[in-house]
Amino acid sequence: MKLEQLIDDAKGLQKKIVAVAAAHDEEVIAAVAAAVEKGLASFILFGNEEKIKSLLHHWNCLNENQEVITIIHTHDDTEAAQSAVRVVHEGKAHVLMKGMVATAVILKAVLNKEFGLRTGNVLSHVAAFEVNGYERLLFITDAAMNISPDLKQKMQIITNAVEIARKIGVETPKVAPVSAVEVVNPDMAATLDAAALTQMNKRGQVKNCIIDGPLALDNAVSLEAAQHKGIQSDVAGQADILLVPSIEVGNVLYKSLVYFANAKVGGIIAGAKAPIVLTSRADSAESKLYSIALAVRSAY
Amino acid sequence: MKLEQLIDDAKGLQKKIVAVAAAHDEEVIAAVAAAVEKGLASFILFGNEEKIKSLLHHWNCLNENQEVITIIHTHDDTEAAQSAVRVVHEGKAHVLMKGMVATAVILKAVLNKEFGLRTGNVLSHVAAFEVNGYERLLFITDAAMNISPDLKQKMQIITNAVEIARKIGVETPKVAPVSAVEVVNPDMAATLDAAALTQMNKRGQVKNCIIDGPLALDNAVSLEAAQHKGIQSDVAGQADILLVPSIEVGNVLYKSLVYFANAKVGGIIAGAKAPIVLTSRADSAESKLYSIALAVRSAY
Repeated sequence: MKLEQLIDDAKGLQKKIVAVAAAHDEEVIAAVAAAVEKGLASFILFGNEEKIKSLLHHWNCLNENQEVITIIHTHDDTEAAQSAVRVVHEGKAHVLMKGMVATAVILKAVLNKEFGLRTGNVLSHVAAFEVNGYERLLFITDAAMNISPDLKQKMQIITNAVEIARKIGVETPKVAPVSAVEVVNPDMAATLDAAALTQMNKRGQVKNCIIDGPLALDNAVSLEAAQHKGIQSDVAGQADILLVPSIEVGNVLYKSLVYFANAKVGGIIAGAKAPIVLTSRADSAESKLYSIALAVRSAY
Repeated sequence: MKLEQLIDDAKGLQKKIVAVAAAHDEEVIAAVAAAVEKGLASFILFGNEEKIKSLLHHWNCLNENQEVITIIHTHDDTEAAQSAVRVVHEGKAHVLMKGMVATAVILKAVLNKEFGLRTGNVLSHVAAFEVNGYERLLFITDAAMNISPDLKQKMQIITNAVEIARKIGVETPKVAPVSAVEVVNPDMAATLDAAALTQMNKRGQVKNCIIDGPLALDNAVSLEAAQHKGIQSDVAGQADILLVPSIEVGNVLYKSLVYFANAKVGGIIAGAKAPIVLTSRADSAESKLYSIALAVRSAY
């Protein structure tokens, strides 16, 4: 599956509304303009009204799109973050998107007990990769939020990713808890968690997916490599979701795919009441668009 | 630098002798025959003499190469491993290579106090990658031996890799201790070790290299990514050696490069009295040849 298809499938979903916290930024408005042009969503832009208008004007995006763009003036970053979170909390928007505001500020608003987006679940990052030579979308989690998740957190990280995969049409995603080896090694904690998660899945404790691990990366994505090792598995060679054991593993894999394998990627934070788009300046315009499309498709 | 150059530079080094433990295997002899054809080294083959001769015959490799191939019959794997290790211990061979024998058996012989190859140093795996779009050889360590090295072990792992890089002509290798982020984060042990290693290098405790970390993978290999983050570093964007914090990070990076980025790789075990070639069946013939070339070039 191609990421472009996420965009195609999201077209006409303009009933889905994205609330952007601190939208007064050139790159943020560029992403919004691109998403509006593709018809991915409607937007409520919180931030400096004058600057937002001027940037939208630059993109010729204001006059003809009055129906899908609303601007709400806020005085500072905290107000922008809180206001954007609040409209999502109230169900008036379906996706939260970070603009020109620190991640810590927006996450603080997300975690606010009164008007935030908590569900009690772990928040986790889910990245959807389109990698040359691999026919499925490859979801990698968690490469950005949870540093060294324990078994309970891994359960929720998987559940978050499974929900997103199902939203975009992967009915029963195949989940590979990735380690350095495919055998259970008492000296390697990641392999013990992988075995436990596999068994929890068999006992119905983690649903709507097939988990089988530990698998090394090659076993997870190459049937030939798995057969070479004599691995019998419903997941090997055809993983939809790679659960990585730590943020270092995820981050290195993420960047290796982007920098060395020219992979395409979109990513969101899952586990809150609504998907959260946290693109960073280093992301390409294309990647930002994929992230918005993934969020819109994942939103209720 | 290209890995092919390792082979070119190793040509004519037939004075370097590789001792192969349990050479009676089709794929092992295929690798030996290829190395002999390229003129990379001389070989002492330990194992079942009859089978070795028949396999060499199959490759038309025996008659015309009597000067560079010696066969010594052994009765079982343990004898083959011990005998091969012993000739290296005695200085009669310069590289140890694993044949059709379990890694545990050969490592046990390597660690033998009487005739083994201990130096007191940590043994570590060093892989040399040729990656499209990155002009340097990229050494990754340790993706295969040390599960979760502590700071002292990381020092030695770096030292092992630096020695190899220098042997192939990288006079002062640039070392990036890789983490998920480029800042020191008290909650991420890998970043603390990276900072300590950087400072140890400044104080002369790790020599013959420039260490600067923590760096995320993109900062280590892309100057643009590093500048985007405002990172001032002599290593960023031009790392020769990536020190990974755990075997999971290394293994996933290794396999991502091989499977998704079509990178070429050769690898050896360093830290013993002589380089050790531990190729596995899953390695391509090309990769085995690169590993032998890297070992020959690294040998004293």
